[in-house]
Amino acid sequence: MKKVVTMGGGTGNFVVLTGLKNHDIDLSAIVSMADDGGSTGVLRDELGVLPPGDVRQCLIALSDSGRLMRSLMNYRFEGGSLQGHSFGNLFLSALEKVTGSFEKAVEEAGKVLSIKGKVIPITIHQTRLKMLLQNGKLLDGEKEVYLSQEISKGFKSIYLEPFPKANSHAIDELMNADLIVFGPGGLYTSLIPSLLVEGIPKALRESKAKKVFVVNLMNKYGQNPGFKVGDYLRELQKFMGRDIFDFVLMNSGKPPKELINMYAEEGDLVENDLTNDQRVISLDLLSNELKEVQKGDLLKRNLIRHDPKKLAGALLGILNEL
Amino acid sequence: MKKVVTMGGGTGNFVVLTGLKNHDIDLSAIVSMADDGGSTGVLRDELGVLPPGDVRQCLIALSDSGRLMRSLMNYRFEGGSLQGHSFGNLFLSALEKVTGSFEKAVEEAGKVLSIKGKVIPITIHQTRLKMLLQNGKLLDGEKEVYLSQEISKGFKSIYLEPFPKANSHAIDELMNADLIVFGPGGLYTSLIPSLLVEGIPKALRESKAKKVFVVNLMNKYGQNPGFKVGDYLRELQKFMGRDIFDFVLMNSGKPPKELINMYAEEGDLVENDLTNDQRVISLDLLSNELKEVQKGDLLKRNLIRHDPKKLAGALLGILNEL
Repeated sequence: MKKVVTMGGGTGNFVVLTGLKNHDIDLSAIVSMADDGGSTGVLRDELGVLPPGDVRQCLIALSDSGRLMRSLMNYRFEGGSLQGHSFGNLFLSALEKVTGSFEKAVEEAGKVLSIKGKVIPITIHQTRLKMLLQNGKLLDGEKEVYLSQEISKGFKSIYLEPFPKANSHAIDELMNADLIVFGPGGLYTSLIPSLLVEGIPKALRESKAKKVFVVNLMNKYGQNPGFKVGDYLRELQKFMGRDIFDFVLMNSGKPPKELINMYAEEGDLVENDLTNDQRVISLDLLSNELKEVQKGDLLKRNLIRHDPKKLAGALLGILNEL
Repeated sequence: MKKVVTMGGGTGNFVVLTGLKNHDIDLSAIVSMADDGGSTGVLRDELGVLPPGDVRQCLIALSDSGRLMRSLMNYRFEGGSLQGHSFGNLFLSALEKVTGSFEKAVEEAGKVLSIKGKVIPITIHQTRLKMLLQNGKLLDGEKEVYLSQEISKGFKSIYLEPFPKANSHAIDELMNADLIVFGPGGLYTSLIPSLLVEGIPKALRESKAKKVFVVNLMNKYGQNPGFKVGDYLRELQKFMGRDIFDFVLMNSGKPPKELINMYAEEGDLVENDLTNDQRVISLDLLSNELKEVQKGDLLKRNLIRHDPKKLAGALLGILNEL
């Protein structure tokens, strides 16, 4: 059975895992630990636990238990002192306290949710994302980076503090993979942060796995407007040491004009400027379904998004040629 | 397989169920819904849910899942806005919100915890325990009744408001039982409150089941000091319509003097004044273990308590003679 390892943000990972879970592959999700918004942020601050939000999403994506358990994990309390907490986050945090280990908590939660595959925190150390902008302003925490509209004016540095060592199990997964699926995910909030963990870029460079970059559908206003595929690859390369990708999977589908207009304030579609690059696979990967999904802890009406089945189909196509 | 139905408070039910669970009987626990202290009280007030505390204890008692899941259900958050909430309570409240029904929530929680038997809320309506004292003071809520030290000076009335209808499933269980185990439990906080639910006294009177009263070990200072077995039976009879019990199971064991002295401020041992009553079975039912247990939502060092195995042995003795 071929081994596929995914890396990316909350929603990005969710879509990839949802698509791949029902296929006959050995699936592992390596999850960024930089999240500090919403319910996750409160739990980090008040209980000193590791951030559960993105892990919860991956567990739900891989869960084989019924719809009720998945709804329960995503349920958010309304009113009173529990306002805004997702039950799944409380579940992971309580399990971390009871087991004494976040990694053990994730493993036990995986059993309760009957997940197919594995969910692995990229690090088991507390850390915080920081970004120093050209204008001297420090963005402190993933939430501030996520909300900033000044990044496009330039930044001096992006780093995790303290500088965390990678979880050795995450390294093992990368080294033993047949295919590593990187992205989609927030460029400055998920993708680059996962490359700021000590040991991850080296493992990505040295792993014999084929590596595919799933390009985001949209650029984010105020962060990386007008980025083309080449810009993404150049930006990631700075943190990876070199361009590691064997395949670049991107969307060629065009959403209806009304949707593009609706999104105009949030960002623009990513275009392909590497038409002569043999690595680029350009396919219609768009979802036609209209519904609300969750981005990390921020509820967001996300209408332009990947279709899990189309994405999985493209990734399996790559896997079958290995 | 013989059908045994238990009624009582949090800790009382917990001990009976723990003792009986590993025997070959069809076991159901009918749980009082008057609890409003601690974490349970906050959840009732803030989320408008039914009180999860006593149900949680019964589920844990009947759970066949590993120690970790049971620890998780009893885990209490420390610090921040979650301070004092038991995870199991949040689990039941979130399930109630997701399923839209407390009874369904209890059923689903039972599946997750692989319980042996059934846990059934005595009513599925919101209600609140009230007690009007002789001196005109109104005790509003189970917590105030629990903490009061003035009840022994006399009370005018005790009632649930609004007056709740019994859960029809609870009535069915009582009517189909072979043995009903009533108590042990707080006289004014669990036992009598369960008799204040519309339909329960009638079902207890009309059920063909044999009925056993498991007498509390201790009286409570300021509530019913000096009560003997006969006093308990007379007090319960007022709310049951008549003396319904076929058996009265009481402890004859004597705790070490130091323990009795330690407890002197909290209450005194219940004595047997019915030595000629053939229904009274008097046995050493005391636990020799020293450990902390939980009474409802109030953590209490409970050193004088029933031994689950001894209690179950006595109850099975009764059951086998039916």
